[in-house]
Amino acid sequence: MEFSSKLLEKAVNEMSQLPGVGKRTALRLVLHLMRQPQQQTLDLSEALAQMRTEIKFCKSCHNISDTEICEICANPNRVEDVICVVEDIRDVMAIENTSSFKGLYHVLGGKISPMDGIGPNDLNIQSLVEKVKQGAVKELIFALGSTMEGDTTNFYIYKQIQDFNIKTSTIARGISVGNELEYTDEVTLGRSIINRIPFEASLKS
Amino acid sequence: MEFSSKLLEKAVNEMSQLPGVGKRTALRLVLHLMRQPQQQTLDLSEALAQMRTEIKFCKSCHNISDTEICEICANPNRVEDVICVVEDIRDVMAIENTSSFKGLYHVLGGKISPMDGIGPNDLNIQSLVEKVKQGAVKELIFALGSTMEGDTTNFYIYKQIQDFNIKTSTIARGISVGNELEYTDEVTLGRSIINRIPFEASLKS
Repeated sequence: MEFSSKLLEKAVNEMSQLPGVGKRTALRLVLHLMRQPQQQTLDLSEALAQMRTEIKFCKSCHNISDTEICEICANPNRVEDVICVVEDIRDVMAIENTSSFKGLYHVLGGKISPMDGIGPNDLNIQSLVEKVKQGAVKELIFALGSTMEGDTTNFYIYKQIQDFNIKTSTIARGISVGNELEYTDEVTLGRSIINRIPFEASLKS
Repeated sequence: MEFSSKLLEKAVNEMSQLPGVGKRTALRLVLHLMRQPQQQTLDLSEALAQMRTEIKFCKSCHNISDTEICEICANPNRVEDVICVVEDIRDVMAIENTSSFKGLYHVLGGKISPMDGIGPNDLNIQSLVEKVKQGAVKELIFALGSTMEGDTTNFYIYKQIQDFNIKTSTIARGISVGNELEYTDEVTLGRSIINRIPFEASLKS
Protein backbone atom coordinates (compact mmCIF):
# COMPACT_ATOMS: atom_id res chain seq x y z
CA MET A 1 0.00 0.00 0.00
CA GLU A 2 1.49 3.33 -1.05
CA PHE A 3 0.51 6.47 0.76
CA SER A 4 0.57 10.03 -0.47
CA SER A 5 1.35 11.23 3.05
CA LYS A 6 3.87 10.07 5.63
CA LEU A 7 1.62 11.23 8.47
CA LEU A 8 -1.25 9.17 7.11
CA GLU A 9 1.02 6.18 6.65
CA LYS A 10 2.25 6.40 10.23
CA ALA A 11 -1.27 6.64 11.63
CA VAL A 12 -2.40 3.66 9.55
CA ASN A 13 0.62 1.62 10.60
CA GLU A 14 0.05 2.32 14.29
CA MET A 15 -3.67 1.60 13.99
CA SER A 16 -3.06 -1.70 12.23
CA GLN A 17 -1.10 -2.94 15.27
CA LEU A 18 -4.42 -3.44 17.01
CA PRO A 19 -5.69 -7.02 17.02
CA GLY A 20 -8.08 -7.78 14.17
CA VAL A 21 -7.33 -4.50 12.42
CA GLY A 22 -5.56 -4.91 9.09
CA LYS A 23 -4.09 -2.16 6.92
CA ARG A 24 -7.31 -1.69 4.97
CA THR A 25 -9.47 -1.39 8.07
CA ALA A 26 -6.91 0.92 9.65
CA LEU A 27 -7.05 3.17 6.58
CA ARG A 28 -10.84 3.19 6.68
CA LEU A 29 -10.84 4.17 10.37
CA VAL A 30 -8.20 6.85 9.92
CA LEU A 31 -9.96 8.37 6.90
CA HIS A 32 -13.15 8.42 8.95
CA LEU A 33 -11.34 10.45 11.61
CA MET A 34 -10.14 12.86 8.90
CA ARG A 35 -13.76 13.55 7.96
CA GLN A 36 -14.85 14.17 11.55
CA PRO A 37 -14.20 17.32 13.58
CA GLN A 38 -10.59 17.59 14.68
CA GLN A 39 -11.59 17.49 18.34
CA GLN A 40 -12.81 13.89 18.05
CA THR A 41 -9.36 12.64 17.07
CA LEU A 42 -7.68 14.73 19.76
CA ASP A 43 -10.09 13.35 22.38
CA LEU A 44 -9.40 9.78 21.29
CA SER A 45 -5.66 10.41 21.25
CA GLU A 46 -5.70 11.93 24.72
CA ALA A 47 -8.00 9.30 26.22
CA LEU A 48 -5.70 6.50 25.04
CA ALA A 49 -2.50 8.14 26.24
CA GLN A 50 -4.02 9.10 29.59
CA MET A 51 -5.47 5.65 30.15
CA ARG A 52 -2.21 3.90 29.37
CA THR A 53 -0.07 6.13 31.56
CA GLU A 54 -2.37 6.82 34.51
CA ILE A 55 -4.48 3.72 34.98
CA LYS A 56 -3.60 1.50 37.93
CA PHE A 57 -4.20 -2.10 38.83
CA CYS A 58 -5.84 -2.72 42.20
CA LYS A 59 -3.11 -3.83 44.64
CA SER A 60 -5.37 -6.43 46.12
CA CYS A 61 -7.31 -8.03 43.23
CA HIS A 62 -5.38 -6.74 40.16
CA ASN A 63 -8.56 -5.35 38.63
CA ILE A 64 -8.15 -2.18 36.57
CA SER A 65 -8.75 0.83 38.77
CA ASP A 66 -8.15 4.56 39.07
CA THR A 67 -7.12 4.13 42.69
CA GLU A 68 -4.67 1.94 44.62
CA ILE A 69 -7.50 -0.27 45.83
CA CYS A 70 -10.42 -0.77 43.44
CA GLU A 71 -14.04 0.14 44.24
CA ILE A 72 -15.05 -3.47 44.74
CA CYS A 73 -12.25 -4.30 47.18
CA ALA A 74 -12.85 -1.01 49.04
CA ASN A 75 -16.59 -1.61 49.41
CA PRO A 76 -17.33 -2.56 53.05
CA ASN A 77 -20.59 -4.29 52.02
CA ARG A 78 -18.82 -7.01 50.03
CA VAL A 79 -18.07 -10.40 51.58
CA GLU A 80 -14.31 -10.25 52.03
CA ASP A 81 -13.49 -13.91 52.46
CA VAL A 82 -15.20 -15.28 49.36
CA ILE A 83 -12.98 -14.77 46.32
CA CYS A 84 -13.92 -15.38 42.71
CA VAL A 85 -10.90 -16.18 40.52
CA VAL A 86 -11.27 -14.81 36.98
CA GLU A 87 -9.09 -14.48 33.92
CA ASP A 88 -9.44 -10.78 33.14
CA ILE A 89 -11.35 -7.62 33.87
CA ARG A 90 -14.03 -8.42 31.29
CA ASP A 91 -15.04 -11.40 33.40
CA VAL A 92 -15.35 -9.14 36.44
CA MET A 93 -17.66 -6.87 34.45
CA ALA A 94 -19.72 -9.83 33.22
CA ILE A 95 -20.20 -11.26 36.72
CA GLU A 96 -20.89 -7.82 38.22
CA ASN A 97 -23.64 -7.38 35.62
CA THR A 98 -25.45 -10.42 37.00
CA SER A 99 -25.63 -8.89 40.52
CA SER A 100 -25.38 -12.48 41.78
CA PHE A 101 -22.03 -12.25 43.53
CA LYS A 102 -21.27 -10.27 46.67
CA GLY A 103 -17.71 -11.40 47.32
CA LEU A 104 -14.41 -10.08 45.97
CA TYR A 105 -12.48 -10.97 42.83
CA HIS A 106 -8.96 -11.98 41.97
CA VAL A 107 -7.91 -11.21 38.39
CA LEU A 108 -5.22 -13.61 37.14
CA GLY A 109 -4.49 -11.68 33.96
CA GLY A 110 -4.65 -14.79 31.77
CA LYS A 111 -4.57 -18.57 31.83
CA ILE A 112 -1.64 -20.95 32.01
CA SER A 113 -0.94 -21.76 28.38
CA PRO A 114 2.43 -23.31 27.52
CA MET A 115 1.56 -23.06 23.80
CA ASP A 116 1.49 -19.26 24.11
CA GLY A 117 4.47 -19.19 26.46
CA ILE A 118 2.36 -18.20 29.48
CA GLY A 119 3.48 -19.92 32.67
CA PRO A 120 2.23 -19.57 36.29
CA ASN A 121 4.78 -16.84 36.98
CA ASP A 122 3.30 -14.61 34.28
CA LEU A 123 -0.02 -14.55 36.13
CA ASN A 124 -1.16 -13.09 39.46
CA ILE A 125 -1.22 -16.50 41.13
CA GLN A 126 1.37 -15.94 43.87
CA SER A 127 -0.55 -13.07 45.44
CA LEU A 128 -3.69 -15.23 45.52
CA VAL A 129 -1.84 -18.06 47.27
CA GLU A 130 -0.49 -15.49 49.75
CA LYS A 131 -4.03 -14.34 50.57
CA VAL A 132 -5.02 -17.96 51.24
CA LYS A 133 -1.90 -18.56 53.36
CA GLN A 134 -2.71 -15.53 55.51
CA GLY A 135 -6.10 -17.08 56.28
CA ALA A 136 -8.02 -14.27 54.60
CA VAL A 137 -10.04 -16.62 52.39
CA LYS A 138 -12.92 -18.92 53.30
CA GLU A 139 -14.04 -19.90 49.81
CA LEU A 140 -12.40 -19.74 46.39
CA ILE A 141 -14.68 -19.86 43.34
CA PHE A 142 -12.93 -20.74 40.09
CA ALA A 143 -14.63 -18.88 37.23
CA LEU A 144 -12.24 -19.43 34.32
CA GLY A 145 -13.41 -20.42 30.85
CA SER A 146 -14.06 -24.14 30.46
CA THR A 147 -11.08 -24.87 28.22
CA MET A 148 -7.96 -26.99 28.57
CA GLU A 149 -6.04 -23.90 29.71
CA GLY A 150 -8.76 -22.90 32.17
CA ASP A 151 -8.84 -26.38 33.71
CA THR A 152 -5.02 -26.46 33.91
CA THR A 153 -4.96 -23.10 35.69
CA ASN A 154 -7.70 -24.14 38.12
CA PHE A 155 -5.81 -27.32 38.93
CA TYR A 156 -2.47 -25.55 39.36
CA ILE A 157 -3.98 -23.13 41.86
CA TYR A 158 -5.87 -25.92 43.60
CA LYS A 159 -2.64 -27.87 44.17
CA GLN A 160 -1.05 -24.81 45.80
CA ILE A 161 -3.86 -24.18 48.25
CA GLN A 162 -5.37 -27.62 48.90
CA ASP A 163 -3.61 -27.99 52.27
CA PHE A 164 -5.13 -24.81 53.69
CA ASN A 165 -8.56 -26.26 54.37
CA ILE A 166 -10.65 -23.72 52.50
CA LYS A 167 -13.76 -24.34 50.42
CA THR A 168 -13.19 -24.41 46.66
CA SER A 169 -15.80 -24.51 43.93
CA THR A 170 -16.13 -23.87 40.23
CA ILE A 171 -19.04 -22.11 38.58
CA ALA A 172 -21.63 -24.57 37.25
CA ARG A 173 -21.37 -25.81 33.67
CA GLY A 174 -24.60 -26.86 32.06
CA ILE A 175 -27.16 -25.99 29.45
CA SER A 176 -27.87 -22.28 29.06
CA VAL A 177 -31.12 -20.90 30.40
CA GLY A 178 -33.67 -20.95 27.58
CA ASN A 179 -31.75 -23.51 25.51
CA GLU A 180 -33.26 -26.68 24.00
CA LEU A 181 -31.63 -29.97 25.01
CA GLU A 182 -31.28 -31.21 21.44
CA TYR A 183 -29.06 -28.29 20.43
CA THR A 184 -26.70 -28.58 23.41
CA ASP A 185 -23.33 -30.19 22.75
CA GLU A 186 -22.75 -33.65 24.22
CA VAL A 187 -19.98 -32.75 26.63
CA THR A 188 -22.00 -29.95 28.22
CA LEU A 189 -25.14 -32.07 28.39
CA GLY A 190 -23.19 -34.99 29.84
CA ARG A 191 -21.64 -32.81 32.53
CA SER A 192 -24.98 -31.25 33.36
CA ILE A 193 -26.42 -34.71 34.08
CA ILE A 194 -23.45 -35.79 36.19
CA ASN A 195 -23.51 -32.52 38.15
CA ARG A 196 -27.30 -32.45 38.54
CA ILE A 197 -28.65 -30.37 41.40
CA PRO A 198 -31.51 -31.14 43.81
CA PHE A 199 -34.80 -29.91 42.36
CA GLU A 200 -35.55 -27.94 45.51
CA ALA A 201 -32.29 -26.04 45.09
CA SER A 202 -33.13 -25.20 41.48
CA LEU A 203 -36.41 -23.60 42.59
CA LYS A 204 -34.52 -21.04 44.66
CA SER A 205 -32.37 -19.61 41.88
CA MET B 1 -21.52 -1.67 30.67
CA GLU B 2 -20.06 -0.66 34.03
CA PHE B 3 -16.39 0.15 34.34
CA SER B 4 -14.17 0.01 37.37
CA SER B 5 -12.16 2.94 36.03
CA LYS B 6 -13.20 6.30 34.60
CA LEU B 7 -10.04 6.44 32.45
CA LEU B 8 -10.84 3.07 30.96
CA GLU B 9 -14.44 4.08 30.36
CA LYS B 10 -13.39 7.25 28.56
CA ALA B 11 -10.94 5.39 26.33
CA VAL B 12 -13.57 2.77 25.47
CA ASN B 13 -16.16 5.44 24.73
CA GLU B 14 -13.84 7.35 22.41
CA MET B 15 -12.75 4.17 20.67
CA SER B 16 -16.32 3.06 20.11
CA GLN B 17 -16.99 6.24 18.10
CA LEU B 18 -15.05 4.64 15.24
CA PRO B 19 -17.24 3.10 12.54
CA GLY B 20 -17.86 -0.62 13.03
CA VAL B 21 -16.38 -0.58 16.53
CA GLY B 22 -18.91 -1.31 19.27
CA LYS B 23 -18.37 -1.06 23.01
CA ARG B 24 -17.26 -4.67 23.31
CA THR B 25 -14.73 -4.42 20.49
CA ALA B 26 -13.50 -1.11 21.89
CA LEU B 27 -12.96 -2.73 25.29
CA ARG B 28 -11.06 -5.61 23.68
CA LEU B 29 -8.80 -3.21 21.77
CA VAL B 30 -8.18 -1.01 24.80
CA LEU B 31 -7.39 -3.98 27.06
CA HIS B 32 -4.99 -5.21 24.38
CA LEU B 33 -3.19 -1.87 24.56
CA MET B 34 -3.00 -2.21 28.35
CA ARG B 35 -1.13 -5.48 27.92
CA GLN B 36 1.35 -4.04 25.41
CA PRO B 37 4.35 -1.82 26.22
CA GLN B 38 3.27 1.71 27.11
CA GLN B 39 5.17 3.13 24.14
CA GLN B 40 2.83 1.45 21.64
CA THR B 41 -0.19 3.36 22.96
CA LEU B 42 1.75 6.62 23.10
CA ASP B 43 2.89 6.11 19.50
CA LEU B 44 -0.64 5.44 18.35
CA SER B 45 -1.97 8.41 20.28
CA GLU B 46 0.67 10.74 18.86
CA ALA B 47 0.33 9.46 15.28
CA LEU B 48 -3.43 10.09 15.32
CA ALA B 49 -3.19 13.57 16.81
CA GLN B 50 -0.35 14.57 14.51
CA MET B 51 -2.11 13.25 11.44
CA ARG B 52 -5.36 15.05 12.23
CA THR B 53 -3.73 18.38 12.99
CA GLU B 54 -0.88 18.51 10.47
CA ILE B 55 -2.11 16.69 7.38
CA LYS B 56 -3.05 18.83 4.40
CA PHE B 57 -5.23 18.35 1.37
CA CYS B 58 -3.60 19.05 -1.99
CA LYS B 59 -4.80 22.48 -3.18
CA SER B 60 -5.19 21.19 -6.69
CA CYS B 61 -6.67 17.68 -6.46
CA HIS B 62 -7.79 17.50 -2.78
CA ASN B 63 -5.80 14.31 -2.24
CA ILE B 64 -4.34 13.87 1.25
CA SER B 65 -0.79 15.22 1.30
CA ASP B 66 1.97 16.45 3.58
CA THR B 67 2.59 19.40 1.28
CA GLU B 68 0.48 22.13 -0.33
CA ILE B 69 0.56 20.34 -3.69
CA CYS B 70 0.60 16.53 -3.57
CA GLU B 71 3.34 14.35 -5.07
CA ILE B 72 1.18 13.30 -8.00
CA CYS B 73 0.18 16.83 -9.00
CA ALA B 74 3.77 18.02 -8.55
CA ASN B 75 5.22 15.24 -10.73
CA PRO B 76 6.27 16.76 -14.10
CA ASN B 77 6.04 13.35 -15.78
CA ARG B 78 2.27 13.08 -15.32
CA VAL B 79 -0.14 14.04 -18.10
CA GLU B 80 -1.63 17.27 -16.74
CA ASP B 81 -4.75 17.57 -18.85
CA VAL B 82 -6.23 14.12 -18.26
CA ILE B 83 -8.06 14.06 -14.95
CA CYS B 84 -9.54 11.05 -13.23
CA VAL B 85 -12.48 11.94 -10.95
CA VAL B 86 -12.63 9.70 -7.87
CA GLU B 87 -14.60 9.57 -4.67
CA ASP B 88 -11.84 9.41 -2.09
CA ILE B 89 -8.15 8.89 -1.48
CA ARG B 90 -8.53 5.11 -1.33
CA ASP B 91 -9.56 5.15 -4.98
CA VAL B 92 -6.43 7.13 -5.83
CA MET B 93 -4.34 4.47 -4.06
CA ALA B 94 -6.19 1.66 -5.86
CA ILE B 95 -5.69 3.20 -9.31
CA GLU B 96 -2.06 4.13 -8.58
CA ASN B 97 -1.45 0.47 -7.67
CA THR B 98 -2.44 -0.58 -11.19
CA SER B 99 0.25 1.68 -12.77
CA SER B 100 -2.21 2.06 -15.67
CA PHE B 101 -2.90 5.76 -15.34
CA LYS B 102 -0.45 8.58 -15.97
CA GLY B 103 -2.79 11.56 -15.61
CA LEU B 104 -3.85 13.50 -12.52
CA TYR B 105 -6.72 12.95 -10.08
CA HIS B 106 -9.53 14.99 -8.62
CA VAL B 107 -10.82 13.75 -5.28
CA LEU B 108 -14.47 14.69 -4.71
CA GLY B 109 -14.55 13.62 -1.08
CA GLY B 110 -17.79 11.65 -1.49
CA LYS B 111 -20.77 11.14 -3.73
CA ILE B 112 -23.98 13.16 -4.04
CA SER B 113 -26.37 11.36 -1.73
CA PRO B 114 -29.55 13.19 -0.66
CA MET B 115 -30.39 10.30 1.67
CA ASP B 116 -27.24 11.04 3.70
CA GLY B 117 -27.67 14.78 3.34
CA ILE B 118 -24.70 15.16 0.99
CA GLY B 119 -25.31 17.69 -1.77
CA PRO B 120 -23.03 19.00 -4.54
CA ASN B 121 -21.81 21.85 -2.34
CA ASP B 122 -20.41 19.40 0.22
CA LEU B 123 -18.07 17.95 -2.40
CA ASN B 124 -15.08 19.33 -4.29
CA ILE B 125 -17.06 19.78 -7.50
CA GLN B 126 -16.76 23.54 -7.98
CA SER B 127 -12.97 23.46 -8.15
CA LEU B 128 -13.18 20.73 -10.79
CA VAL B 129 -15.57 22.78 -12.91
CA GLU B 130 -13.20 25.76 -12.52
CA LYS B 131 -10.31 23.69 -13.89
CA VAL B 132 -12.41 22.76 -16.90
CA LYS B 133 -13.50 26.38 -17.43
CA GLN B 134 -9.89 27.52 -17.43
CA GLY B 135 -9.21 25.14 -20.31
CA ALA B 136 -6.76 23.08 -18.27
CA VAL B 137 -8.52 19.78 -18.99
CA LYS B 138 -8.63 17.74 -22.19
CA GLU B 139 -10.26 14.58 -20.84
CA LEU B 140 -12.24 13.78 -17.72
CA ILE B 141 -12.47 10.15 -16.63
CA PHE B 142 -15.28 9.37 -14.20
CA ALA B 143 -14.14 6.62 -11.84
CA LEU B 144 -16.85 6.57 -9.19
CA GLY B 145 -18.44 3.39 -7.89
CA SER B 146 -21.22 2.06 -10.08
CA THR B 147 -24.09 2.90 -7.73
CA MET B 148 -27.10 5.18 -7.91
CA GLU B 149 -25.13 7.87 -6.05
CA GLY B 150 -22.09 7.42 -8.29
CA ASP B 151 -24.18 7.75 -11.44
CA THR B 152 -25.97 10.82 -10.05
CA THR B 153 -22.66 12.49 -9.25
CA ASN B 154 -21.23 11.68 -12.68
CA PHE B 155 -24.31 13.13 -14.34
CA TYR B 156 -24.31 16.27 -12.20
CA ILE B 157 -20.70 17.02 -13.09
CA TYR B 158 -21.31 16.16 -16.73
CA LYS B 159 -24.14 18.69 -16.93
CA GLN B 160 -21.84 21.41 -15.58
CA ILE B 161 -19.06 20.84 -18.08
CA GLN B 162 -20.80 19.53 -21.18
CA ASP B 163 -20.59 22.89 -22.98
CA PHE B 164 -16.82 23.07 -22.72
CA ASN B 165 -16.05 20.59 -25.47
CA ILE B 166 -13.81 18.22 -23.55
CA LYS B 167 -13.67 14.45 -23.77
CA THR B 168 -15.45 12.59 -20.99
CA SER B 169 -15.38 8.88 -20.27
CA THR B 170 -16.18 6.45 -17.48
CA ILE B 171 -14.07 3.48 -16.53
CA ALA B 172 -15.29 0.26 -18.15
CA ARG B 173 -17.79 -1.91 -16.29
CA GLY B 174 -17.74 -5.59 -17.16
CA ILE B 175 -16.88 -9.02 -15.90
CA SER B 176 -13.77 -9.20 -13.75
CA VAL B 177 -10.62 -10.69 -15.24
CA GLY B 178 -10.53 -14.38 -14.35
CA ASN B 179 -14.28 -14.60 -13.63
CA GLU B 180 -16.66 -17.18 -15.05
CA LEU B 181 -19.66 -15.85 -17.01
CA GLU B 182 -22.18 -17.93 -15.12
CA TYR B 183 -21.30 -16.36 -11.75
CA THR B 184 -21.49 -12.76 -13.00
CA ASP B 185 -24.61 -10.80 -12.09
CA GLU B 186 -27.05 -10.03 -14.92
CA VAL B 187 -26.70 -6.26 -14.92
CA THR B 188 -22.93 -6.39 -15.22
CA LEU B 189 -23.04 -9.09 -17.89
CA GLY B 190 -25.72 -7.18 -19.81
CA ARG B 191 -23.66 -3.98 -19.72
CA SER B 192 -20.52 -5.80 -20.78
CA ILE B 193 -22.31 -7.05 -23.91
CA ILE B 194 -23.72 -3.63 -24.78
CA ASN B 195 -20.34 -1.98 -24.23
CA ARG B 196 -18.35 -4.68 -26.02
CA ILE B 197 -14.94 -3.62 -27.35
CA PRO B 198 -13.26 -4.50 -30.68
CA PHE B 199 -11.30 -7.73 -30.31
CA GLU B 200 -8.14 -6.09 -31.63
CA ALA B 201 -8.35 -3.50 -28.84
CA SER B 202 -8.71 -6.22 -26.23
CA LEU B 203 -5.49 -7.83 -27.40
CA LYS B 204 -3.51 -4.72 -26.53
CA SER B 205 -4.49 -4.48 -22.87
